[in-house]
Amino acid sequence: MSPTTATEDERLPQPVAGEIDLVTVLHALGDPVRMRLLLSYADGAEHSCDPRSLGLDHLHKSTVSHHMRVLREAGVTTTRVAGRNRFVSLRRADLDTRFPGLLDALLTSAPAPA
Amino acid sequence: MSPTTATEDERLPQPVAGEIDLVTVLHALGDPVRMRLLLSYADGAEHSCDPRSLGLDHLHKSTVSHHMRVLREAGVTTTRVAGRNRFVSLRRADLDTRFPGLLDALLTSAPAPA
Repeated sequence: MSPTTATEDERLPQPVAGEIDLVTVLHALGDPVRMRLLLSYADGAEHSCDPRSLGLDHLHKSTVSHHMRVLREAGVTTTRVAGRNRFVSLRRADLDTRFPGLLDALLTSAPAPA
Repeated sequence: MSPTTATEDERLPQPVAGEIDLVTVLHALGDPVRMRLLLSYADGAEHSCDPRSLGLDHLHKSTVSHHMRVLREAGVTTTRVAGRNRFVSLRRADLDTRFPGLLDALLTSAPAPA
């Protein structure tokens, strides 16, 4: 296997659960596009990175990628790489363990996507 | 009374409770200095703006003022003006009403000030 070939179920870089930082998470979610992404991911499913499927087709793909990266590097989401596809999902269990009640409070209070 | 004279119990500008925005609050708290201030204000008391009393004497006074302003304009804190003094306190009731459980979750998970 070539080291340049993505393997099945590879993950993009992310912090381990115990090192997810509260302030970094709040910074990541303190943006309307990233809050919108959180609401999309709240169903627990894996989501493709297609801006259209996320209701973000008014944004450039590179802008959406940037916001996804901020969420992933903060520890909010995990990205699974399968061949040329990438699937993003919420790190619900990790976040609930590290910050009990935080996600529930956010999802209860967040405005519904337009 | 002159309109340029500060009256007793004047408040610096702040959003009304019903217009406190979740994303703006998260952005305000997504900064280590402002999280530190939140922890100081969590006791519910009024605090002077003296950086030393807030454990922020390593920061310039104008920097601390900037952070306080971000918190106030986001609706996290209220600032009472009494003569030349200003006293800052947490808008606990307003935040608990608007975002149930959020402050509790944050204060439970936030790292203790160094």
